[in-house]
Amino acid sequence: MRCVTVNLGQRSYPISIGSGLLERLHEFVAPLAPTSITIVTNEIVGPLYAQRTLSALPGVATRVVELPDGERHKGWTTVSHVLDALVTARVDRRGLIVALGGGVVGDIAGFAASTYMRGIRYVQVPTTLLAQVDSSVGGKTGINHPGGKNLIGAFHQPSAVVSDTDTLTTLPARELSAGLAEILKHGLVANSQYFEQMVASIESLRAHDAAALTEAIAGSCEIKASIVARDEREAGERAVLNLGHTFGHAIEAMTGYSRWLHGEAVGCGLVMAAELSCRLGSLPSSDVKLVEAAVVRAGLPMRVDGLSALNAIEVMRGDKKADAGEMRFIVLDRIGRASQRAVPQPILLQALTAGGFV
Amino acid sequence: MRCVTVNLGQRSYPISIGSGLLERLHEFVAPLAPTSITIVTNEIVGPLYAQRTLSALPGVATRVVELPDGERHKGWTTVSHVLDALVTARVDRRGLIVALGGGVVGDIAGFAASTYMRGIRYVQVPTTLLAQVDSSVGGKTGINHPGGKNLIGAFHQPSAVVSDTDTLTTLPARELSAGLAEILKHGLVANSQYFEQMVASIESLRAHDAAALTEAIAGSCEIKASIVARDEREAGERAVLNLGHTFGHAIEAMTGYSRWLHGEAVGCGLVMAAELSCRLGSLPSSDVKLVEAAVVRAGLPMRVDGLSALNAIEVMRGDKKADAGEMRFIVLDRIGRASQRAVPQPILLQALTAGGFV
Repeated sequence: MRCVTVNLGQRSYPISIGSGLLERLHEFVAPLAPTSITIVTNEIVGPLYAQRTLSALPGVATRVVELPDGERHKGWTTVSHVLDALVTARVDRRGLIVALGGGVVGDIAGFAASTYMRGIRYVQVPTTLLAQVDSSVGGKTGINHPGGKNLIGAFHQPSAVVSDTDTLTTLPARELSAGLAEILKHGLVANSQYFEQMVASIESLRAHDAAALTEAIAGSCEIKASIVARDEREAGERAVLNLGHTFGHAIEAMTGYSRWLHGEAVGCGLVMAAELSCRLGSLPSSDVKLVEAAVVRAGLPMRVDGLSALNAIEVMRGDKKADAGEMRFIVLDRIGRASQRAVPQPILLQALTAGGFV
Repeated sequence: MRCVTVNLGQRSYPISIGSGLLERLHEFVAPLAPTSITIVTNEIVGPLYAQRTLSALPGVATRVVELPDGERHKGWTTVSHVLDALVTARVDRRGLIVALGGGVVGDIAGFAASTYMRGIRYVQVPTTLLAQVDSSVGGKTGINHPGGKNLIGAFHQPSAVVSDTDTLTTLPARELSAGLAEILKHGLVANSQYFEQMVASIESLRAHDAAALTEAIAGSCEIKASIVARDEREAGERAVLNLGHTFGHAIEAMTGYSRWLHGEAVGCGLVMAAELSCRLGSLPSSDVKLVEAAVVRAGLPMRVDGLSALNAIEVMRGDKKADAGEMRFIVLDRIGRASQRAVPQPILLQALTAGGFV
């Protein structure tokens, strides 16, 4: 087992990563002394792991709330479903939510925890690689609005994150690749050595090698934890974690949040972000090739096909990363370091074209 | 003008109280350098003050969102209406919300501000006495759930509070009395001298004497600011501000949030809380008489008529103040000091009966 701490003063919490942790969940939850536990999961993960999670949490009133699966259900109706269950069960301020599932479950369960009685505690038990390396850490919770992804939400840090690598054995290959996109992103924005190690071990990761997965997840969590500790509410530095995401969000929005997985859109977005960095003169084209090769080896799509570049710009203007109408993007200064830059539209169009936009 | 500061480190903010402040709103908003301003108000306050507020805020894109009036609209549908307006106007992270109205407007606008892009800033411009002395201060925002009042929400501190006593001239007498309930409560839980002064000046306050109102509001804000500064998230001491509120919430819930104003229910709740304190042996019956006399002089109802005491207990069990099934209430140790106590059901029934429950 590996352990990483997110240092946020009174809101600090441990991330535990390893094999067989779901069965040991009680060890991580008991110190929180909850009056009750509400496991929030979805219709895919629930049948696989809810019973084992329940068995691992004896001695306190526990219930399961099963949500519909998929990004398109990440709205108020689903949050409301969780809140109704909490009200019906008369969960009090010391009740605990356990988010058992991928990024969508974590975002919804975390947002419900942040708003119920103005905030109760929750524990993230991510069951996808993407959630284990990225979305379960850092306290971003929320839902989508028809006008944009994650527009409604809260910063609400979990009380613990427990990542059992065994749950990845039931994860479809495509979802595993989606998680690799965020792993590559963490290396690209903060640690070139981690990036190289991850590229070198991609095959082991895709083959579900438990030791390789534990190392990869711990490394990503260390990078993210250190950035979040310095800039919890994304006043500055934390924005580098959005590398590739403005492109990715546009792809997801333009394909109705259904054809592409979030991580796939981010993978493609990383390539466009590298292209953008190159055309702005901050990244050599040889490094763009390295990024492209990594994305391909991760099993991620590198190009969108036939989406309109001008529509994409319109969508990105509406994205929350485009403050005050100015189009700003996270770009790579080199592999291992990123910063925010204003981007002239002609260069943006070139990057989009390189990513397959027409 | 009087100024009170809420000391919360980086989240500290000023409360400005006095006559003619609405016209000077720019002075308080300009230091925040917002990229845009969204005035959230309701169908009653909007026609009276929205235009003057707009005129007082030149030089930045400003829009008005008018909500339906009343506690029964304090739900997600109304919050969603505000969020839609923010998305449509492409408000960015540096946009500002101005909550212009009473407690319901402040709660909804504040909750919308807390969830839009995971939190943007807002300024409270309360136009009712109750909002000026209580709900605009301290960062409690939220909405009702069919299962209970204020069950969904967030702690989100405003960036400033601007209380123009002139806006109280258009306030119905009944609403003014409702505000007096919270003024009396602040004296009862924290400052006997303030309580006595307020009782002595009730007639001036009910006659809209501007100087008396400014002093009363400033005094209440000082009490509340000092408690909130020590216990922002109601981990302990802040709970004393709920004196009379568990009773009040039950009255409101049992009468469909329509027959009683919140402050009226609290006024009646204060009498029952005093009765409870007396029957628990912590308050002499002469002090109960003082509380009753103050509530009557404030023009507040002292008794409910014909509501079921057993139903009330059931409702209060569901209230969020009843953690873990144990019935705990804020009681008076003396006039000017309060604490939390577990209350045996027979004594609770006596207090309810004294308040007119049957």
